[in-house]
Amino acid sequence: MGLISFVEVDLDSHFPIENLPYGVFRPSSACGGGDAAAPRPGVAIGDFVLDLSVVSSAGLFDGPILKNSPCFLQASLNMFVGLGRPAWKEARLTLQRLLSVDEPILRDNSSLREKCLLKMSEVEMLLPTVIGDYTDFFSSMHHAKNCGLIFRGPAKPIQENWFHLPIAYHGRASSVVISGTPIVRPRGQAYPTGSSPPYFGPTQKMDFELEMAAIVGPGNELGKPIDVNIAADHIFGLVLMNDWSARDIQAWEYVPLGPFLGKSFGTTISPWIVTLDALEPFACEAPKQDPEPLPYLTESKHVNYDIPLEVWIKPAGHEHPVLVTSSNFSNLYWTLTQQLAHHTINGCNLRPGDLLGTGTISGPEEGSVGCLLELTWNGQKPQNLNGTIRKFLEDGDEVVFKACCKGKGYNVGFGSCTGKIQPAIP
Amino acid sequence: MGLISFVEVDLDSHFPIENLPYGVFRPSSACGGGDAAAPRPGVAIGDFVLDLSVVSSAGLFDGPILKNSPCFLQASLNMFVGLGRPAWKEARLTLQRLLSVDEPILRDNSSLREKCLLKMSEVEMLLPTVIGDYTDFFSSMHHAKNCGLIFRGPAKPIQENWFHLPIAYHGRASSVVISGTPIVRPRGQAYPTGSSPPYFGPTQKMDFELEMAAIVGPGNELGKPIDVNIAADHIFGLVLMNDWSARDIQAWEYVPLGPFLGKSFGTTISPWIVTLDALEPFACEAPKQDPEPLPYLTESKHVNYDIPLEVWIKPAGHEHPVLVTSSNFSNLYWTLTQQLAHHTINGCNLRPGDLLGTGTISGPEEGSVGCLLELTWNGQKPQNLNGTIRKFLEDGDEVVFKACCKGKGYNVGFGSCTGKIQPAIP
Ligand SMILES: [Ca+2]
Ligand SMILES: [Ca+2]
Ligand SMILES: [Mg+2]
Ligand SMILES: [Mg+2]
Ligand code: NI
Repeated sequence: MGLISFVEVDLDSHFPIENLPYGVFRPSSACGGGDAAAPRPGVAIGDFVLDLSVVSSAGLFDGPILKNSPCFLQASLNMFVGLGRPAWKEARLTLQRLLSVDEPILRDNSSLREKCLLKMSEVEMLLPTVIGDYTDFFSSMHHAKNCGLIFRGPAKPIQENWFHLPIAYHGRASSVVISGTPIVRPRGQAYPTGSSPPYFGPTQKMDFELEMAAIVGPGNELGKPIDVNIAADHIFGLVLMNDWSARDIQAWEYVPLGPFLGKSFGTTISPWIVTLDALEPFACEAPKQDPEPLPYLTESKHVNYDIPLEVWIKPAGHEHPVLVTSSNFSNLYWTLTQQLAHHTINGCNLRPGDLLGTGTISGPEEGSVGCLLELTWNGQKPQNLNGTIRKFLEDGDEVVFKACCKGKGYNVGFGSCTGKIQPAIP
Repeated sequence: MGLISFVEVDLDSHFPIENLPYGVFRPSSACGGGDAAAPRPGVAIGDFVLDLSVVSSAGLFDGPILKNSPCFLQASLNMFVGLGRPAWKEARLTLQRLLSVDEPILRDNSSLREKCLLKMSEVEMLLPTVIGDYTDFFSSMHHAKNCGLIFRGPAKPIQENWFHLPIAYHGRASSVVISGTPIVRPRGQAYPTGSSPPYFGPTQKMDFELEMAAIVGPGNELGKPIDVNIAADHIFGLVLMNDWSARDIQAWEYVPLGPFLGKSFGTTISPWIVTLDALEPFACEAPKQDPEPLPYLTESKHVNYDIPLEVWIKPAGHEHPVLVTSSNFSNLYWTLTQQLAHHTINGCNLRPGDLLGTGTISGPEEGSVGCLLELTWNGQKPQNLNGTIRKFLEDGDEVVFKACCKGKGYNVGFGSCTGKIQPAIP
């Protein structure tokens, strides 16, 4: 794109001026007290965070929509994402100009620069939005097939409905946490063996699920569906998401009303929302669908994004993370826009800041599946992580998701989404 | 109890001084403009609403916990319910004293009385809390059995897990609406017949579900379960709930991840939260459970409440509602406290104001089932509503739930929970 920032950005950085993902942060206690520690929106640029509350207070958002808007003086991004695409475009243009090497206003004002550009290492990242509702889809065919084979056998691994609609369930919004938050191993019930009562105790099948999630923009009123062809205007951007799963709890509880305690103990998202505008250069055709979807799911622009995804595990007591799987967002059968249109076709209202998980993103190859359930085939094929054997996650294991789109001379990256397993409570 | 209020209360009122349920209201535009129209908490007394923001501002909450608390100067009850049982007890004692015929402070102050006692007909009721998450249980054995028979056949109508844990799913919080809100008939996909593609259009099996729901009090931190024997301290009170359901959409989508669009188009709750303290005289022993629950679900006080429930339908174009079913809260197999303890056993955090639906409350007799699915056996046994035939709900039908506990010389009632079906969008 030929954009260059006056902020120095390493060539391998996830956050060059072409990206500018949004998050919410708080300056670490070391560099500010009292009011200074209030959460506020920022964008990532190289190793820095640009404090949008300062940029806004300095009057630098001078476009028609954002000029007098308090949207960056909030503790969350909900107000900003609720403004819709024209505001997002305006903010992006303004920020790319302000950060450009050719624009003196910030570049040459060292006192303002010091106030609004903070080292990433000196801020604490928080959840970017208040999540009213969190929905998790099930949009990778390979994942659906593998789960069906494991849980229900080879007869008909994928239910017929799966090919007609983007299957989803409501997740638990209260336990969505930001990357880095420790995850306590949940306790719960699991299948009884023979005629014995069900097992109760810490889960023995602790798993991750490699997902991404959309952050909803303006959303819709109750009773007014969003057309699939304008659905993209209701998606602000994407984050990485780890839908931690206790497979033994899930398997015992999920019939007939779906996953509940096997999932609700924690869901981790990455802090930086990468906008669809930044992802535009990485758009690619989504898989052809057979059978053809119903008209309300038929879209004129049927796209995925080419986002390479990696899962690394740092086993308890070890120094080095091991790459366990590599997948790609483009493996999704149902697109984000189809998911959103389906979600609202019954009139269900989406609100700004809602979270829509894609479901586990598994590819067709063995090394591209998105969870240990598939990778170890429910524990039957233990994996060797550089000398450490794993069926499922052990206490002290740290799971790290990474995603980075490779552009011509720049990246559009997501940073990482991490969580470490803590022992169950006694 | 011998309590008498200076506010005149009809003998058949749901809201005598023994009840004092909490809600959030806004004076109708007719009787106030500008600031006067802001939502604020109130309690119901006879045909009046006591404005707690006015009571609080007048300094009449003089107990140690509520004296300087801003909890009644909020637009929702979240802060108050988050304070916990000691605050609830203090508020109840203070309000019963203030409203008592023997207490002059309000009785004899006509200007204050006029400011804080509003006619119920002149206020608009709103959702009582901001609902962070809404969970729906499945705790009536009769309902579970009937659904199993209808959807899966007679082989094993109730899954084995049902007897070991209170099955539940996450519901959609955004579409929970207050009593009286019209419900637009949802559109969606339903089962294909033979080799044809799935049906798409307005649901042909619009149903209600007779439920009650608990409003969560203080709740818990992520990772810290609530013991079943203190779970009652985390339940502020109960409301009536209609979990509107589109049976054809639900049947096609729900395997394997549970109900989604068949439910998420709307869930109606009644405006007045009746506290567990007011319900205490109606506590009764809950059903003996076999098999014995696991230790984390075994409670020293295993109680339900004797709350008679009624469903009335006013068919489109008719004047008079018809009683279609009569059930009772005491039909629940899993108690509220078991539901709450189970919900948190994996560490899942509940927040003040969360909503926990009981699931459809069906009794053992034909006339006591809690939805049309059961009553008409999925449309196979149409019901005659005083000359009008119904398999499922038609456009223009109004559904009214009522609940009222009969005490010695007084009621503790819930008022009603209503909704009228509007035609699907074209
Ligand atoms: Ca998932
Ligand atoms: Ca229900
Ligand atoms: Mg989760
Ligand atoms: Mg509902
Ligand atoms: Ni929710």
